[in-house]
Amino acid sequence: MAKQLIECVPNFSEGRRSDVIEAIVAPFRKRKGCALLDYRADADHNRLVVSLAGEPAPVQEVLIEAATVAVSRIDLNRHQGGHPRIGAVDVVPFVPLRDITMEACVELAHHFGRRYHQETGVPVYFYEEAALMPERRRLEAIRKGQYEGLKKDIQRPERHPDVGERTLHPTAGATAIGARKFLIAFNVNLGTDDIGIAREIAKVVGASGGGLGHVKCIGLPLKDRGLVQVSINIVDYEKNALYRVLELVRMEAKRWGVPVAETELYGMVPAPALLDSIAYYMQTAGFDPSQVIELRLLELLGDEK
Amino acid sequence: MAKQLIECVPNFSEGRRSDVIEAIVAPFRKRKGCALLDYRADADHNRLVVSLAGEPAPVQEVLIEAATVAVSRIDLNRHQGGHPRIGAVDVVPFVPLRDITMEACVELAHHFGRRYHQETGVPVYFYEEAALMPERRRLEAIRKGQYEGLKKDIQRPERHPDVGERTLHPTAGATAIGARKFLIAFNVNLGTDDIGIAREIAKVVGASGGGLGHVKCIGLPLKDRGLVQVSINIVDYEKNALYRVLELVRMEAKRWGVPVAETELYGMVPAPALLDSIAYYMQTAGFDPSQVIELRLLELLGDEK
Repeated sequence: MAKQLIECVPNFSEGRRSDVIEAIVAPFRKRKGCALLDYRADADHNRLVVSLAGEPAPVQEVLIEAATVAVSRIDLNRHQGGHPRIGAVDVVPFVPLRDITMEACVELAHHFGRRYHQETGVPVYFYEEAALMPERRRLEAIRKGQYEGLKKDIQRPERHPDVGERTLHPTAGATAIGARKFLIAFNVNLGTDDIGIAREIAKVVGASGGGLGHVKCIGLPLKDRGLVQVSINIVDYEKNALYRVLELVRMEAKRWGVPVAETELYGMVPAPALLDSIAYYMQTAGFDPSQVIELRLLELLGDEK
Repeated sequence: MAKQLIECVPNFSEGRRSDVIEAIVAPFRKRKGCALLDYRADADHNRLVVSLAGEPAPVQEVLIEAATVAVSRIDLNRHQGGHPRIGAVDVVPFVPLRDITMEACVELAHHFGRRYHQETGVPVYFYEEAALMPERRRLEAIRKGQYEGLKKDIQRPERHPDVGERTLHPTAGATAIGARKFLIAFNVNLGTDDIGIAREIAKVVGASGGGLGHVKCIGLPLKDRGLVQVSINIVDYEKNALYRVLELVRMEAKRWGVPVAETELYGMVPAPALLDSIAYYMQTAGFDPSQVIELRLLELLGDEK
C-alpha cells in the first residue's frame, strides 16, 4: 500500500538574517519520510516560505523542531516587512497530496495545532478547511490588524484564539494553522503594456468577477519587460484545470488583439494537473498516470519503503 | 548524486503457458534497485514483453535469472507464433533513462551479452546502437529467416554470431542484445473509415515517406469502431516531440476534412516527453521538471538510497 503523502507550506516571519533562515530550514533536511521541496526567503516581505512533502508523522516532527527555532529567534516586536503577519511562525497549511483526504488533513491541523501550542506556548487560530468558525476560513480575517493589532484585539471574544490563552506570545505572536487544497500559481504574460487589458481579463476570468470558480486573478504590470501579466491562483485544480483557465485567457486576449507572449508556472505543480492538461491538448483517451515511467517508479519506491 | 537509471525491455518467446510466464517474470519482482514497470503476454504472438527500470547492476542480475528460466523452459523447435523470433530470450534492448549515456548502454549491452553467453551457452548478436557491424543495426536483418532459417544460415560467415559458437543453442536458439533510445508508441485515431486517408497521412508524416525524422508511421483500420488509425513510433522523442508529430497529423487530416477523434499513448512514456509537449501547448517559459512535485520526490528518494 502506498504511503499517505501531504504537502506543508509553513511561512516564517524572517527573510533577511541568513543564519536564522538556515537554522529554521535545517530540521527539514535529510529527515526520512519528509522532503524539503523548496524554500524562498524574501527580504522585502521579510518572510520565509518553505515547501515540504512527506508522510504526516515525520512532517509534524520536523515542523515542531523548526517552529521551536523560529519562536526562539524571531521577535515580532522588532519585525518589519511588506507581508501581513501575526507570528514568528505565521501560517502552517496542510495540503493532501496522495492517499489522504481533506478531512484527515483537517484533523492533522487540529492535532498539530494543540501540540504546537503545548510545546511553544503560542496561541493558535485554525483557518480555511480547518476553521472552527466560518468567519475564520479566510486567513485575512485572522490576520486583521496584524501582530500589532491582534495584540490588543485578542482580548475581544470574537478574536480569542482557538487554542491557548487570550494573550499573544510576547515575542512570537500567534500562528494560523489550516488545511487547504493544493494551490497552483500560474501567470499569463500578454504582449502589450496596457495594464487595463490585463485587469479587464483578470476580472472576467477570475471567480470574484463572475468568471471561473476556484480561480483568483489580478492584472499586474511587468514594467521592465514592457508586458502585462494576468497573475492567477487556481485554488482547486481538480475543479478548474490549467488548460481551461489558459484557454479562457487566450480567448479574452483575442478580443483586444493581444497575443499571449508566454506563461509561467510558479513554484510546485502536482503531476496530475499537468497530465490533465496534456490529455486535453493531445486528445489522449484512457491515459493512466502510471504509464509515466517516473510516476510508476515513485509508486514502486513508495511501496517498498 | 542521482543513480544511473536504465530501462530494459526483454522479449521472451512464450505468450501462452502462464506457469512459464510467471516463472520468467518472478525474478523481476521485489529486487532492490530494479522495478518491474509492466509485462504483457500475447497468445497470438506467443511472446512476452517485459519492461524494467533500474540501476544497471541489479537489472543485469535479474535479467540473467529470468533468462536462465526462459532458456531452460522454452523449446524453439516447438514454438509457433505470429511474431518473428530467433530465441527463447529473443531480444534484450538497454535504454538510457537518466544520468547515463548511450555509449554506456552500448558497453552494458556488450558486457551483458558476453556474460549471458557464458552462463547459458546461447549465441548473441548485437543490434541497433550496440551493433558491431553496420548491417546488424536493424533487428530485421539479424532475425531474417527466424529461428528455423538461422539454424542453417549461422554457418555462413555473414551470419556468424558476435559472441559464441557458429551453431544455435539446441532449444533456445540465439539472442539479439542491443542498445537504443526510448521508443514512444503513439496512435492518432481519425473520424473516418477510409483507410486510404490514414495511409496517406502516415506516408507524409513518417520518415520513410520524407516526413519527420525519427518517426515511423503506418495506417491501420480499426474495424470494430469504424475509424482508422495512424499508428506512430517516435524512436527519438528528443529530436521529434509528441506535439510536433500530432500537430502535423492534425494539419494533414484537415486536408481531408477528417477530424482527430482521439489519440492513444501506448505503454510507458518518460515524463520529459510529456512536459516538453505541455510547455508547447501552454507556452510555458522556463519550466523546470523539478517543479513537478512527484519528479522532485523521485529525485530526493533516488538521492537518499
